[in-house]
Amino acid sequence: MSKISLFFFLATLVANAHGSYFPLITNQIHLLRPQSGSGGSYVEGLSCLSWRFGVETNNVIGWKTVPVTCEDYIGHYMLGSQYRKDSKVIAKEGFFHVKSLNLSKNGKDIWVFDVDETTLSNLPYYAEHGFGVEPYNSTEFNAWVLTGNAPALPETLKLYKKLLSLGVKVVFLTGRTEDQRTVTETNLKSVGYHNWEKLILKGKEFSGKTAVAYKSAQRKKLEEEDGYRIIGNIGDQWSDLLGTNTGLRTFKLPDPMYYIG
Amino acid sequence: MSKISLFFFLATLVANAHGSYFPLITNQIHLLRPQSGSGGSYVEGLSCLSWRFGVETNNVIGWKTVPVTCEDYIGHYMLGSQYRKDSKVIAKEGFFHVKSLNLSKNGKDIWVFDVDETTLSNLPYYAEHGFGVEPYNSTEFNAWVLTGNAPALPETLKLYKKLLSLGVKVVFLTGRTEDQRTVTETNLKSVGYHNWEKLILKGKEFSGKTAVAYKSAQRKKLEEEDGYRIIGNIGDQWSDLLGTNTGLRTFKLPDPMYYIG
Repeated sequence: MSKISLFFFLATLVANAHGSYFPLITNQIHLLRPQSGSGGSYVEGLSCLSWRFGVETNNVIGWKTVPVTCEDYIGHYMLGSQYRKDSKVIAKEGFFHVKSLNLSKNGKDIWVFDVDETTLSNLPYYAEHGFGVEPYNSTEFNAWVLTGNAPALPETLKLYKKLLSLGVKVVFLTGRTEDQRTVTETNLKSVGYHNWEKLILKGKEFSGKTAVAYKSAQRKKLEEEDGYRIIGNIGDQWSDLLGTNTGLRTFKLPDPMYYIG
Repeated sequence: MSKISLFFFLATLVANAHGSYFPLITNQIHLLRPQSGSGGSYVEGLSCLSWRFGVETNNVIGWKTVPVTCEDYIGHYMLGSQYRKDSKVIAKEGFFHVKSLNLSKNGKDIWVFDVDETTLSNLPYYAEHGFGVEPYNSTEFNAWVLTGNAPALPETLKLYKKLLSLGVKVVFLTGRTEDQRTVTETNLKSVGYHNWEKLILKGKEFSGKTAVAYKSAQRKKLEEEDGYRIIGNIGDQWSDLLGTNTGLRTFKLPDPMYYIG
């Protein structure tokens, strides 16, 4: 931990000792506090809560960076307990949904998981890059992906384990590219995802296509060519959940850090 | 104002004087504080913020009442400044979207508004009925509708006026039934909505149909029979925005008080 992060970490502890609204939680995905604030858009008089509401409801779309005035708010949200609590409600709804179904038991019922900010968390990276305030840097982000050090999103991992125990097969469908297959497999296994039916990465044939087009085409193939039934579909981006063959129900996890259309 | 409401109103003022997180705002839609808490579901350890996140992102669906432990949270949200701020971000996004379009100027570009909790607010009614904690009572709710006293949602009214000034036609598409046409027209006009292309209420032929089926059918008719182009579509329920012929873009306003599928 750098001196700056240690300072912020200690400052957070002190703030908590004084009854701040930001409680310390156990099993945090990442403990760092924001370190940089370059980039980002400035919007006068913006309520960061409202901006997040707009983002999560798919009203605010096509944005490139988190408004610079919201870095602190988003940082607290992501590192604090609310992100975990919000994710828990969504994962639980997913589980209740599956419990309510008449599962086929023929091995053809699948659940589709997105990877980044759904199955794996890039919060350690984003905490070092202004929580989305800095413009996306593919070189730096890919270098992080190649470390294979992304932790699991704890609530998603719980849902994954419950689904396997119910006999549901799991498919990972990610915008990560085919050349990142090995590191993605290794990373998934190292944090607790040991079994899957398929791990679908973005091949060259989808280069330049939108996430909605790519993911819809892959889900269509799963259903129409492979004969699977998608009983649930979870992702942090609306582009994981819109389009065709979206599944019996979709589940939107929080992600106020970046937008993929 | 009853003695109980006056007490809560004064208590709110005092709380504000002490720097509470709940600031007084001007032009509040309704000043009452929650008066009753019958009904509602109890969910152990529930975060009301997370429940609202789940509801607004269409993850938590098919619910009948607000969890009883969230009455106070939802009441503060609805009566405080955040509901207004959230609505403002959405309405502004709608306006930016229209400004980005090449409008046809042929009188065929329309914007579809839902009515309840979109164009008109039933907050005065819900403030007296636990903000959604009490089970829906159609007799009491319809009696309220027939008073014709629903205020406008201020941010929606602003969007409406801006759209008219840009030459966009307005269509109201509501789940209110045909027998409520006169009171709905009178109510709309009395709070500032003076012009519209069509006011579509739910006819007997859609009795028993879901909101998604009814609204999709009416939007399809608008586009395919009447030749309109729906450039925007705003509502407080996902059932206003899903289905077919949803428009170029949809806009989801907050509503943590009730669910219509």
